[in-house]
Amino acid sequence: MDTLELAGRTFRVTRARASDVPALVGLLADDVLGRGREGEAMEPYLRAFEQIHADPHQLLVAVRDEDEQIAATVQLTLLPGLSRGGATRLQIEAVRVGASARGTGLGSAVLAWAHDWGRAHGATLAQLTTDGSRTDAHRFYERLGYEPSHVGFKRPL
Amino acid sequence: MDTLELAGRTFRVTRARASDVPALVGLLADDVLGRGREGEAMEPYLRAFEQIHADPHQLLVAVRDEDEQIAATVQLTLLPGLSRGGATRLQIEAVRVGASARGTGLGSAVLAWAHDWGRAHGATLAQLTTDGSRTDAHRFYERLGYEPSHVGFKRPL
Repeated sequence: MDTLELAGRTFRVTRARASDVPALVGLLADDVLGRGREGEAMEPYLRAFEQIHADPHQLLVAVRDEDEQIAATVQLTLLPGLSRGGATRLQIEAVRVGASARGTGLGSAVLAWAHDWGRAHGATLAQLTTDGSRTDAHRFYERLGYEPSHVGFKRPL
Repeated sequence: MDTLELAGRTFRVTRARASDVPALVGLLADDVLGRGREGEAMEPYLRAFEQIHADPHQLLVAVRDEDEQIAATVQLTLLPGLSRGGATRLQIEAVRVGASARGTGLGSAVLAWAHDWGRAHGATLAQLTTDGSRTDAHRFYERLGYEPSHVGFKRPL
């Protein structure tokens, strides 16, 4: 889809394929919070992938490095809504940058790419939540122009 | 779709129709934060309504009272995702209860209905954000079993 040139390296932003699912789950699990909540069996992840892939309002991004390894991921959803003058929101979930790409600015570049994708699809507001304990992530999003204006509530069903 | 009996009153949970849009926007605008950000012209809201209505992962709820007046609203979205074991999330947006129904417990009943709808569609986690200034809403969601575990970031695009 697009190429990102960063710190002498080249990354490609692509739509994730089913064959990427194990590597994407690996990225999710390689995380202080993800470690305890991701499983070994791939079936539930593949079912979830098929649902995301079939939904035209969703884009699961796989960012590939020069060796076709997955270096980062983000899940984007277009949320039309009545509030704020009928604004479409860009919902951003599951942002992860792999250890091999940290320090290259890939996280910021992927978010900038995501914002462009949202604008191109009519979104006028980006929104995401991060766990209260991820203080580095909070600084990262504030540098990218985000305001920590809301409290994010979660509840098991 | 379903009937809610509360404080001697009867409310019906229905899928919103295009003809409900002015009343729904009225509910959004009758709010300390909504007041400044909703407009007069209905066209952008009707366009947003059509997008929501056409999306099988979305349900815009209009709760009607005994006189068919809209007493409350909520927008529900099913968000499949890879993280947390391939969990589907129930994203909850734009919760509003009209002045005529306040004190009847309608807000709690509508959220409980939303949780049931999410479970029936495979969701295992509900999530929402509220503006940091809405301290009454924070207590309301905590009473309903929500944890304020996350920071909600927003950014204009």
